[in-house]
Amino acid sequence: MDNNFLDKLKEISGDSALITGKAVAERKAGIWIDEPIGASAIVRPKTTKEISQILALCNESQIEVVTHGGLTGLSQGAIANTEQLALSTELMTEIEEIDPYGRTLTTQSGVKLQTIQEVSEQHNMFFPLDLGARGSCSIGGNASTNAGGNKVIRYGMTRDLILGLEAVLADGTIISSMNKMLKNNTGYDLKQLFIGSEGTLGIITKLVLRLKEKPSSENTALIACDSFEKVKELLKHFDSGLAGSITAFEVMWNEFYTLVTTSPAENKPPIHQDYPFYILIEYSGFDQAIDTEHFNSLLESGLDKNLISDAVIAKNEKERSDLWGIRDDVEQQFRLGPIKIFDVSLPINDMETYLENSKKLFTKHWEEFHFVVFGHLADGNLHIIAGVNKDDADSMRQIENCIYEPLRDINGSVSAEHGIGLEKLPYLDISRSEEEINLMRTLKRSLDPNNILNPGKVFS
Amino acid sequence: MDNNFLDKLKEISGDSALITGKAVAERKAGIWIDEPIGASAIVRPKTTKEISQILALCNESQIEVVTHGGLTGLSQGAIANTEQLALSTELMTEIEEIDPYGRTLTTQSGVKLQTIQEVSEQHNMFFPLDLGARGSCSIGGNASTNAGGNKVIRYGMTRDLILGLEAVLADGTIISSMNKMLKNNTGYDLKQLFIGSEGTLGIITKLVLRLKEKPSSENTALIACDSFEKVKELLKHFDSGLAGSITAFEVMWNEFYTLVTTSPAENKPPIHQDYPFYILIEYSGFDQAIDTEHFNSLLESGLDKNLISDAVIAKNEKERSDLWGIRDDVEQQFRLGPIKIFDVSLPINDMETYLENSKKLFTKHWEEFHFVVFGHLADGNLHIIAGVNKDDADSMRQIENCIYEPLRDINGSVSAEHGIGLEKLPYLDISRSEEEINLMRTLKRSLDPNNILNPGKVFS
Repeated sequence: MDNNFLDKLKEISGDSALITGKAVAERKAGIWIDEPIGASAIVRPKTTKEISQILALCNESQIEVVTHGGLTGLSQGAIANTEQLALSTELMTEIEEIDPYGRTLTTQSGVKLQTIQEVSEQHNMFFPLDLGARGSCSIGGNASTNAGGNKVIRYGMTRDLILGLEAVLADGTIISSMNKMLKNNTGYDLKQLFIGSEGTLGIITKLVLRLKEKPSSENTALIACDSFEKVKELLKHFDSGLAGSITAFEVMWNEFYTLVTTSPAENKPPIHQDYPFYILIEYSGFDQAIDTEHFNSLLESGLDKNLISDAVIAKNEKERSDLWGIRDDVEQQFRLGPIKIFDVSLPINDMETYLENSKKLFTKHWEEFHFVVFGHLADGNLHIIAGVNKDDADSMRQIENCIYEPLRDINGSVSAEHGIGLEKLPYLDISRSEEEINLMRTLKRSLDPNNILNPGKVFS
Repeated sequence: MDNNFLDKLKEISGDSALITGKAVAERKAGIWIDEPIGASAIVRPKTTKEISQILALCNESQIEVVTHGGLTGLSQGAIANTEQLALSTELMTEIEEIDPYGRTLTTQSGVKLQTIQEVSEQHNMFFPLDLGARGSCSIGGNASTNAGGNKVIRYGMTRDLILGLEAVLADGTIISSMNKMLKNNTGYDLKQLFIGSEGTLGIITKLVLRLKEKPSSENTALIACDSFEKVKELLKHFDSGLAGSITAFEVMWNEFYTLVTTSPAENKPPIHQDYPFYILIEYSGFDQAIDTEHFNSLLESGLDKNLISDAVIAKNEKERSDLWGIRDDVEQQFRLGPIKIFDVSLPINDMETYLENSKKLFTKHWEEFHFVVFGHLADGNLHIIAGVNKDDADSMRQIENCIYEPLRDINGSVSAEHGIGLEKLPYLDISRSEEEINLMRTLKRSLDPNNILNPGKVFS
């Protein structure tokens, strides 16, 4: 990256927008990564127009660009090398409009998810996307990775919460599709190209988000079940009893629950640790008294049907937060030694067999191993925590194979919500056919013929 | 289309699959179109493999293909000319699987929407897409036009109800993306290319649909409002009171309501005809007694806040159906003489000004005209019925300009749910920028370089 090029970047975005030399390496490559950012320089534009000019320049100069949001990704989608320019949206922080009647929020892409949640709340509205990294992740990053979270069964993925967007193509062309309506069938829905494509087809600069009215009641319970069949029935029991509006259905397998409710973990077990499955169920409704009565009646009928072995109900916000604290205490898993947390999805009906098959592969390779399961069951999304007390590359690769390969025949996904990035690239073909990957390449070639946008990520 | 080509088609799909000569013209070009199908021949494959072979053949022979579903489209998206082959999915009628636990239905694309609804119901599940043409339209057509309907505010468009699909590209390549999970972030979401692109990028052969649990209560009311401001407040009042789960919010402007509740129309006015706005509100919940109490309390608080001038509540299914009968009696509009029904969308906040501006244009051109408005207000989707007692092409074109041009500056849509087809092609640039249309062309060229799939539709 020569000085002439850097000077041109400064001309576009101003001196203070550019970070070069040692200052680049003073920044970490990710919130959970210890290595420094590897890019040659970081440019921090403030407007769509600047991004357009920067990309036109990069495209002409064949400089590769890796877009940086909050750097909270879990699949190495934002890793840059020393030949690449990192384009950070950290100064694209303007919320342009909030419309409580049209129920939309229009924003630049560098705004933090938590800010969007808070601003929505200030206007008595609700932006349902929520995930642990809310305070660090940017909404543009959420969009380009199609982030998920805990409420997907009720509100959908990030994709489902975006009405319109603006993106800049590799050659600097600005595609403004800032639709604000729920219905707009005028030609191809171009925004879909940029959502979930991890910065390889364009840089998202603005978004029109769909806001929802805020629920005004919460009912939460932790339930123990004695078989997977009953877990499946319980999901149907609650989701049908709530007219398809269940808000969360989080399942913990015994090993997970035991670990996070045994000292030195801080949580105590609200239900004893002898059951194979624990489910955190939540319903967000409109009237606390009415909804609690109905929710409790569903618990009772679940008991009558023998679907529920034991249950505790959160009687107040503190108890609710304690129940979620159990589900969210994923950190305890690090007590197990070197582990890897997986993010797979598969049809609910295939889960039992899949887990057996995967475990069998572990048994083949190792005498002792950790295999701990929890996840957003209703979305088909399981997180598996696996470890074999070794963290050399070969062991890790072998663990990955044991988790991913059994997904191949059941049309499962090696990445439910985290994306492919660099990390899962070797396993993409387990979830996608050659024809699909070729079509991805066709799209990439036609939108980014010089291959300057996050090259080498998602597929090779 | 020479005999050699037709023979090859017969080899692929069998003699009985092919319709040629006069028999083609015995079929109408559309459910609501009197002209015959203009295609040179109609081929009716039964499997994805046959479609793959047919398209490979057509691509090689540069024969253009127009896909036919139920032919219920409203934008001339399935009109074929005498050089073109119509490919009908009418024999692709197998429902392959229904999974009440995974909450999915897997089907070939030629199955009628109503069949999908009924089969879902037989398994105690619910497929929320619903529209007037349910008995004739195919689910593949719903997908390729991204059909809407009355429940979009709660359940979304067809796009939101598709988890996976299989499509055949112009060169015969089968893209199988039959995902069954709510979460799957493994590379580009290719299905989005085929949904809503009106058969120009591929032929949809199979679908994995997302089923929902069936609501078990209905509450419906017709409400009169004395200002548009109050209509907007009422939407917020109900949607927030129902935690964002309102099922329908259909608004009729006075002229519409008066026409459909005045003899010779069969419906009587349940509320007198003096109010400027009438709203049909519906909430589908989980317990009739509980929900009715809550729904009625929202009506009462709406009255207290002076948002509601008058209201009637449906006390049973007959009364509910009568209220919907008023909203659905669009046929009465044909009493106005030659009219055209428009399908636009725009932000709710812009509606009043837009309607004034459009009406002003009518006043400029004609002393007398009809301008009747109703629609899915919460989705931003208005249907405008316009007529000037003339049906010559020039008048129609002028009417279209009066409706569409005022949408340009407010980022409105010339087609909320019906699509572009041939009919709205001249107006696409009102809703989409040159850059967007160019990007559509780029996609079309890269997926269908010989331009054989429904050429000339959507954009030129």
